[in-house]
Amino acid sequence: MSAVRLPCSLSSRVVIGSVTPSVDDGEFPVKRVVGDTVIVEADCFADGHDKIEATLHFRHDADADWQSVPMRSLGNDRWQASFSVDRLGFWRYAVEAQVRSAGDQPSAAGITRTAQEFPISVERARARFSTWYELFPRSCSANGTHGTFTDVIGRLDAVASMGFDVLYLPPIHPIGRTLRKGRNNATASVAGDVGSPWAIGAKEGGHKAIHPSLGDAAAFRRLLEAAKARDMEIALDIAFQCSPDHLYVESNPEWFRANPDGTIRCAENPPKKYEDIYPFDFESLQWRPLWRELHSVIAHWIGEGVRIFRVDNPHTKPFAFWAWALGQLKRDFPDTIFLSEAFTRPRVMHRLAKAGFSQSYTYFTWRETRQELTEYFTELCLGPGREYFRPNCWPNTPDILPRHLQAAGAPAFRIRLVLAATLAANYGIYGPAFELMENQPKAPGSEEYLNSEKYEIKAWDRANPVSLAPFISEVNAIRRGHAALQSDWGLHFHSTGNDQLLCYSKTSEDGDQVLCVVNLDATNAQSGWVDLDLDVLGLGADSRFEVHDLLSDERYRWQGRRNFVRLDPDEAPAHVFHVARGKPAASTRPAPQ
Amino acid sequence: MSAVRLPCSLSSRVVIGSVTPSVDDGEFPVKRVVGDTVIVEADCFADGHDKIEATLHFRHDADADWQSVPMRSLGNDRWQASFSVDRLGFWRYAVEAQVRSAGDQPSAAGITRTAQEFPISVERARARFSTWYELFPRSCSANGTHGTFTDVIGRLDAVASMGFDVLYLPPIHPIGRTLRKGRNNATASVAGDVGSPWAIGAKEGGHKAIHPSLGDAAAFRRLLEAAKARDMEIALDIAFQCSPDHLYVESNPEWFRANPDGTIRCAENPPKKYEDIYPFDFESLQWRPLWRELHSVIAHWIGEGVRIFRVDNPHTKPFAFWAWALGQLKRDFPDTIFLSEAFTRPRVMHRLAKAGFSQSYTYFTWRETRQELTEYFTELCLGPGREYFRPNCWPNTPDILPRHLQAAGAPAFRIRLVLAATLAANYGIYGPAFELMENQPKAPGSEEYLNSEKYEIKAWDRANPVSLAPFISEVNAIRRGHAALQSDWGLHFHSTGNDQLLCYSKTSEDGDQVLCVVNLDATNAQSGWVDLDLDVLGLGADSRFEVHDLLSDERYRWQGRRNFVRLDPDEAPAHVFHVARGKPAASTRPAPQ
Repeated sequence: MSAVRLPCSLSSRVVIGSVTPSVDDGEFPVKRVVGDTVIVEADCFADGHDKIEATLHFRHDADADWQSVPMRSLGNDRWQASFSVDRLGFWRYAVEAQVRSAGDQPSAAGITRTAQEFPISVERARARFSTWYELFPRSCSANGTHGTFTDVIGRLDAVASMGFDVLYLPPIHPIGRTLRKGRNNATASVAGDVGSPWAIGAKEGGHKAIHPSLGDAAAFRRLLEAAKARDMEIALDIAFQCSPDHLYVESNPEWFRANPDGTIRCAENPPKKYEDIYPFDFESLQWRPLWRELHSVIAHWIGEGVRIFRVDNPHTKPFAFWAWALGQLKRDFPDTIFLSEAFTRPRVMHRLAKAGFSQSYTYFTWRETRQELTEYFTELCLGPGREYFRPNCWPNTPDILPRHLQAAGAPAFRIRLVLAATLAANYGIYGPAFELMENQPKAPGSEEYLNSEKYEIKAWDRANPVSLAPFISEVNAIRRGHAALQSDWGLHFHSTGNDQLLCYSKTSEDGDQVLCVVNLDATNAQSGWVDLDLDVLGLGADSRFEVHDLLSDERYRWQGRRNFVRLDPDEAPAHVFHVARGKPAASTRPAPQ
Repeated sequence: MSAVRLPCSLSSRVVIGSVTPSVDDGEFPVKRVVGDTVIVEADCFADGHDKIEATLHFRHDADADWQSVPMRSLGNDRWQASFSVDRLGFWRYAVEAQVRSAGDQPSAAGITRTAQEFPISVERARARFSTWYELFPRSCSANGTHGTFTDVIGRLDAVASMGFDVLYLPPIHPIGRTLRKGRNNATASVAGDVGSPWAIGAKEGGHKAIHPSLGDAAAFRRLLEAAKARDMEIALDIAFQCSPDHLYVESNPEWFRANPDGTIRCAENPPKKYEDIYPFDFESLQWRPLWRELHSVIAHWIGEGVRIFRVDNPHTKPFAFWAWALGQLKRDFPDTIFLSEAFTRPRVMHRLAKAGFSQSYTYFTWRETRQELTEYFTELCLGPGREYFRPNCWPNTPDILPRHLQAAGAPAFRIRLVLAATLAANYGIYGPAFELMENQPKAPGSEEYLNSEKYEIKAWDRANPVSLAPFISEVNAIRRGHAALQSDWGLHFHSTGNDQLLCYSKTSEDGDQVLCVVNLDATNAQSGWVDLDLDVLGLGADSRFEVHDLLSDERYRWQGRRNFVRLDPDEAPAHVFHVARGKPAASTRPAPQ
């Protein structure tokens, strides 16, 4: 038998464990927005039968002092307390517990405190609830010439009237000429081709410069102001890559990777290949000046007044870079919001969210069936990832014209818009392609747009009366009016007797409730019974209640679990009901069912 | 903006996470037995599209060198490898991963290794599969006088023939006289009362001494040898508490807690109060010599040849004490097995298992209905706790004559035995009370036995032909013959159309399979359809197969999911089927259905 060695001191008898909310046991922050109440729970228990007491400690990172609040026992050794995060920035909390002193005995071995301080990233409300509209400024002129920031200002009223609050612009910087892409991604360009905005950098400047045809810094500032006046914000694109003409290529060739023949390697995001752009080598021997420079790019645009950034392909840059850069930036500018454009494998997307991205693109674009949508949004909205991964759902992007939008006309666009807008608190569309229902693929089976705006100036027929703009306005107005649709939490799927009918409710913390039934079939009318979880809706077993369709303004008298629904895609993609609980309000129209 | 500080060095681009098996991210060991294959999985991924490679490293704590094996990709960034634990004791493993070097570039920022080394406690096979029989040695004489170890030796053949492999004895030490309990827990004793064996210590000695009426050390060693000859082991009771007459009370009064009046506090385990015993103060100023002494008690009995211990009320002693004591003992004597008698709250029971107990008593004793049993064993056998918490299920103990055993005669005893023996790989009974179906409570509504053996010598009518001994022998023989019943893993519950019929299968890693249908109603025959998950049973949708009842030796031809069952509690509590897959064997009897 080896020598019996004692512990060097008595440890506290109390154990603290299973602390929530937390991400990887406190390694990464959970995300909240200003004004949220953070509800903290922990297992706290000791051996034996002595009573214990537990305390929640919390502080903003900028405060020296901790605040504290006693926790209350929920039974079964679970304890709870809460506090309000009333300021932007990083907060942290910790839990302490101890055996309650027995009076006649000195307190023995003391207090247990969680080994970690659990971080919280508190962002603006818009990080949780935002409605994005993407457009190419160069396509904003009225006459088909290269658009300017002034032309974009001319479009703001239309975008605002559709209910969007973030206007996202693809890169606004000078575009390279060497290896410039032609129309439809041709590897050779001809005179007049404008190239891809993601091929950043030319003799006119790089990531801190503005494409001369769009305007100058003063024009950009006017755009920011004009957006602000309409309660909108401009989001810029951060695409850390260079055209062959970027000044960095000459000034800092060590920041790029060489091919065996000495040429610089072009970028890839399999299966896509980008001959017109060079990626940075983030592990270059000169990574320190590179990282500083890239940080300064974002800081530059923050200095110009931008606070929202959509980051291009962050998954092709090291996680450590983002953790560092976003950590620095969020500390200095806690009102910034970063959207991760990482269309990649799930664990990589989640790791980027943990590294600090406020929102992330999702697989929504390719989720079509009831089962796919139910599983995916159950994971997004009810799984453990919801503490740090905020989905931002896009029915289309300049890169993706999904299959289901290509063949079924307006009903398909309406269905996808309602799904994005009611399932996700953050969503966006790429317009005017979306509201004008552009649906021609580059080739059969392709998800690329024919004559993609990525490579040419588009003259959109904005006066076309066949537009979804009025419908989009309606849906976004419903979002603004209903707290239930302004958070991803509170989602619940209800059964239906028809696979083509997707039924779900969303409930806000303050009790607002929206119940949606979507016909997933863009071609045929579908009908069937929905089977409601009345408990979730706060309704008694046989209660009568009124559902008010916020889209059609029709009201229906429903009773109990099972109620009948019929949706014709040519008339409406969905019911978006407000559920009136208690005594039904007097209906202004006769109930159709 | 604050100064931009760079990380001091580049970190590896590879992230490793969600490593399994692990308990609290490696804070506590997972449990395995010798010969097990440990299957390790981890998320391993990097940014971008470079290929990565991952390696599993493992070693026994006594080995200086690590062994390693390459991990293989399971897809979706999940990696797996396995190794065999072929020696008792503590093992540890770690995962490493790196970007596969591209050939033309020096490997950049290196290898990622899990921050933790994940520990594994490798115990004897009996830690996973054991069949316990508890008896009071003092009741083992043939003539009603105080039994001896020699009398216990005389009982070994009977116990062995019932199929038990662990014979657990309540404390064998001298019993205090001061405040000795009388019959039926009376606070005053009369001449001839033998007292509770848990009131340890008298002038004849304490925790390292043997009650003189049982025999001496030589007799105890003969008992150990006689058990070993029958492939059984003796388990002793570790009850760290003292009668008022224990030598410690005089030699080390600082090890106990004083009441305000200077007297020593008696023990409590609410709602029970033990006037005849003093608990130790584990946080005494003199805790160091106390902890050493208690460690030496267990070490003493290990020195005498005992390797299995049932620990009394471990939840009333600090977790840190057990982590320390069991850690030391398992390191020096890795063949020891410790059973935690913690009938307390779930988190406390789990924490003791994490601290090092090999097995734990459970709530099985009070789980009666189909829903209760299904939920509880799903948690025990399929929940995350199964990595460290091994249930040991007891239909009765000297402390607990549960309600359901009090009124329904032999069928109730048979039902509870079959449930314990087939749902749990470790189970035990307190006999002869169990096989002789003792069912008189001390008072209506009480779970205490009338004339409890805890306070008096019992003259059991061992010759009574009305005994469950033959049935118990059969059930335990089935357990020995079927690997499926020798592990808690591999359990699956199947639906039935009757709430009183509980149906479950157990499948071993090597494909042995047992299918049980238990009638939970001890009073009435119950019949109904079982609805089998054929996938779990490895059977095709409409396949015909034979089920062979290992209890009745009857064979039935079944087909597809739904099959009919009828069980009369007066005939049999259950079907315990072996499922013959493939072509049914020729039946020796006509199939009754």
